[in-house]
Amino acid sequence: MTKTRSYWGWGYEDEFPTETERAELRGLVGMVTGWSLPAPAAWPRFEDARVPAPRLAIPAELAEFTTAAPRARATRTYGRGFPDLIRGMQGDFSPAPDLIAQPRSEAEVSAALAWGSAHNVAVVPYGGGSSVVAGVECRGEGFAGVLCLDMTAMDQVLEVIPETLHARIQGGALGPVLEAQLAEHDLTLRHFPQSFAHSTLGGWIATRAGGHFATNYTHIDDLVSSVRMVTPQGAWESRRLPGSGAGPSPDRLVLGSEGTLGVITEAWMRVFPRPIHRSKAAVHFSEFSAAVAAVHDIAQSRLFPANCRLLDKREAMLNQVAFGSHVLLLGFESATHNQRQGLDRAIAMACAHGGAVEDGPSHTERTRIETAAAESWRSAFFRAPYRQTALATLGVIADTFETAIPWDRFEALHADVVRSVKATMQDVAGGGLLSCRFTHVYPDGPAPYYTFLCPARTGKTLHQWRAIKTAASEALSRNGATITHHHAVGRLHRPWYDQQRPDLFAAALGAVKQTLDPAGVLNPGVLLG
Amino acid sequence: MTKTRSYWGWGYEDEFPTETERAELRGLVGMVTGWSLPAPAAWPRFEDARVPAPRLAIPAELAEFTTAAPRARATRTYGRGFPDLIRGMQGDFSPAPDLIAQPRSEAEVSAALAWGSAHNVAVVPYGGGSSVVAGVECRGEGFAGVLCLDMTAMDQVLEVIPETLHARIQGGALGPVLEAQLAEHDLTLRHFPQSFAHSTLGGWIATRAGGHFATNYTHIDDLVSSVRMVTPQGAWESRRLPGSGAGPSPDRLVLGSEGTLGVITEAWMRVFPRPIHRSKAAVHFSEFSAAVAAVHDIAQSRLFPANCRLLDKREAMLNQVAFGSHVLLLGFESATHNQRQGLDRAIAMACAHGGAVEDGPSHTERTRIETAAAESWRSAFFRAPYRQTALATLGVIADTFETAIPWDRFEALHADVVRSVKATMQDVAGGGLLSCRFTHVYPDGPAPYYTFLCPARTGKTLHQWRAIKTAASEALSRNGATITHHHAVGRLHRPWYDQQRPDLFAAALGAVKQTLDPAGVLNPGVLLG
Repeated sequence: MTKTRSYWGWGYEDEFPTETERAELRGLVGMVTGWSLPAPAAWPRFEDARVPAPRLAIPAELAEFTTAAPRARATRTYGRGFPDLIRGMQGDFSPAPDLIAQPRSEAEVSAALAWGSAHNVAVVPYGGGSSVVAGVECRGEGFAGVLCLDMTAMDQVLEVIPETLHARIQGGALGPVLEAQLAEHDLTLRHFPQSFAHSTLGGWIATRAGGHFATNYTHIDDLVSSVRMVTPQGAWESRRLPGSGAGPSPDRLVLGSEGTLGVITEAWMRVFPRPIHRSKAAVHFSEFSAAVAAVHDIAQSRLFPANCRLLDKREAMLNQVAFGSHVLLLGFESATHNQRQGLDRAIAMACAHGGAVEDGPSHTERTRIETAAAESWRSAFFRAPYRQTALATLGVIADTFETAIPWDRFEALHADVVRSVKATMQDVAGGGLLSCRFTHVYPDGPAPYYTFLCPARTGKTLHQWRAIKTAASEALSRNGATITHHHAVGRLHRPWYDQQRPDLFAAALGAVKQTLDPAGVLNPGVLLG
Repeated sequence: MTKTRSYWGWGYEDEFPTETERAELRGLVGMVTGWSLPAPAAWPRFEDARVPAPRLAIPAELAEFTTAAPRARATRTYGRGFPDLIRGMQGDFSPAPDLIAQPRSEAEVSAALAWGSAHNVAVVPYGGGSSVVAGVECRGEGFAGVLCLDMTAMDQVLEVIPETLHARIQGGALGPVLEAQLAEHDLTLRHFPQSFAHSTLGGWIATRAGGHFATNYTHIDDLVSSVRMVTPQGAWESRRLPGSGAGPSPDRLVLGSEGTLGVITEAWMRVFPRPIHRSKAAVHFSEFSAAVAAVHDIAQSRLFPANCRLLDKREAMLNQVAFGSHVLLLGFESATHNQRQGLDRAIAMACAHGGAVEDGPSHTERTRIETAAAESWRSAFFRAPYRQTALATLGVIADTFETAIPWDRFEALHADVVRSVKATMQDVAGGGLLSCRFTHVYPDGPAPYYTFLCPARTGKTLHQWRAIKTAASEALSRNGATITHHHAVGRLHRPWYDQQRPDLFAAALGAVKQTLDPAGVLNPGVLLG
């Protein structure tokens, strides 16, 4: 029953793409791009991985829940961004943490923080390890070593209050683990980031993860009623409240702290009854700008669709949702009310901008057909990280970046991103493919999400990737967009994050860190320092 | 055209209740309560006010925009809570600030902060002066004196972007002032706290004010896209973004900072097109618990009513909305879509709990009648602070307190509040009246708002009031409710706020203050210290 997590690639080894799927993927990319790809690389083997000897011995006070086993350390060396895959494939685990602790209680979390603080050991809070921003990759320069604090043994739904739709959940619960427990109560957190299977509640809160809903509840932030965080100076817990105006929100300082201030051990979350009414549609557009205008109007309508995902035609094609058109996937859902009117209104707004629903006037039939498009998208969505892993073995650079921007700046941003990223891919790879979708939308602007593909050059892959990532980040930054809408800052986005945040806020955050983590051992290099 | 603001009571002297209205109010209270009230007191006169001589001379660098005039200082000595009215009526202006500065630019704000920091002068940012929590009342103990920084000269809407529904607005704009400027663009901020006419955008942001919408956009927090704050260490400004996941939100540290970290000089706000579709209804209940159950269901339905205000029967009576029933005022509104379906669904949910709409099956007729109830409520709502001022002159203690609590704890909280406050009123005043309404509702709980009335005893009024306020605050605290949902903390709520917030958060906030305001001159005693 226990699946084996890959020590280097996305997800479970048991769910890796088969050789047939890899061949199909290779064929698809070849067909779409015309690139001649090298022969598929063999899957890497752990026997070939180079994991340095630990710099630390396991201390007696952590011995019961700590290991220095090489495979455990290799698996937690990197997140799962594209450069992580490449280095993992190459067997380079030089930044491996020295020890992996898996605390089973807050007392054990505190013991680990105390030990790290006393012995100048960097402590990296670790959930599902799905960071794409080097959020868990810590070389521990200036420290005696690095302790990875894997929280996944603290994974229980501790309490459920159906009347308030509240659930108290431990920070180490992976998505499927907490959903299975909530399902026993006919409830759901309904937070489905692409990393769902390999990310935890604590990780979502620490990184302000983006989830299922396209509007209204876009980040995990909106689902938090109170948080409990253990710091080197003790625990901090806010009251379980539906709302408050008593001073600045303590929770909002925890949200986005990325393991630099403390370890999120549990939270009271706002959960949902499982929706039973759903209405979905796919609207097709021939012009991207028309589709954008439609999404603008729907986002400002206060109809609050659960899903409002615009795929440009490349994105739609790569995910086999449509061939030749830009597609807007709309979804409304409710536990109490039929959603057809909301959907019909949104469709009407989309059609006013030239959108077309492909299946004619029958609502029943439309729902059936559009659901197929949505399901095809959904399945592609959760398989995408596996596909990225497979692409890395096929000599293809495949990665994503995302942002949010006000509507009035989107057109200029988008043009600049397309121009800069394509020029850089041309430069470093002789060409490439760039697609765009909107993952979330606000009345004041969209959250565009870009995917890029280009051929890797042996021995130059990381260099190529870095050039493209830098071009993309520079374009976001000079257009006033955020360096991340929901992928977090980590170590990768630091240069642009430092430009984005007010300098005085950085100083204030530094003062907060000094107060909570005076030894400065928590996830050094992330956000600060 | 310029109206004269009262130096002691709510609002403009020109809009004070007339003698006739005062007599009617006295009659109404006498009729409802049976109390024999003393003869109405004469309105206080400024000639009788005791304003101490200023401890500070106007410095040359602030002279262009600073005054020490007694009336200006008296007017800004207190907020407009009940004890403020009593002391104002008594002519006691002993905590008057020494100087009133009215900066016209950020440079002048900075100059005032620099001068205060250099000369150990407490600086109190001041908007409309409507605080009910002693948020602007600063005696300046340990300081050379107190400078009140009145921001209302910086009151312009500087920029409007219709495409994104963004407006850049200066912090000193009073509600009507900014709405008049937005109306030129057919836009509205739609933030209508009861203090609307006498509170500013900067004050709303600093205190996390609660506004028009009962759901979804309850606090000003939700309408902020970015904030600019001037601190003694310089300016801090976030990017104008629809959303972001880049580290902890800088804006969320400003929201609720109550003038202790800096001065909010401007903000990019999310504005709305003016709604043209409205559907309203009043639903009547004979049992309060049934009405609460109905609101619970509606709050969890994701119908997102703009208004969902439950008045208990005392509240409905005192505001002449209904006599003998508890009333749920429902309102849906939209700039784009007819709202009847949403309203009908909410009404159906309310009727399932025994609610009744009084006018039978015709929708048109219902809308007409219910609108009358809603309008009667709205007019009473904005007149209430004037009424409180008049009641103070009629020998009646009249005040409010408010909170938020999860549904599962509401019944126990409500019973405890009613028991404790009534017992205390019995004790100190021989009896009193307590009413309750919900101002905002969340899926996980309501924001109950209480009004209490009891007879004042000459010379004992402040003592009586303090006993009742303490009993109420203790009841909120021991039931795990927040000490304030949208009235802020100020100096009044400090003891209970200190219990509510995590100790480590207090330490972190102190470190932030030390970073931004190293001389500690900004609004000392509020939130911290």
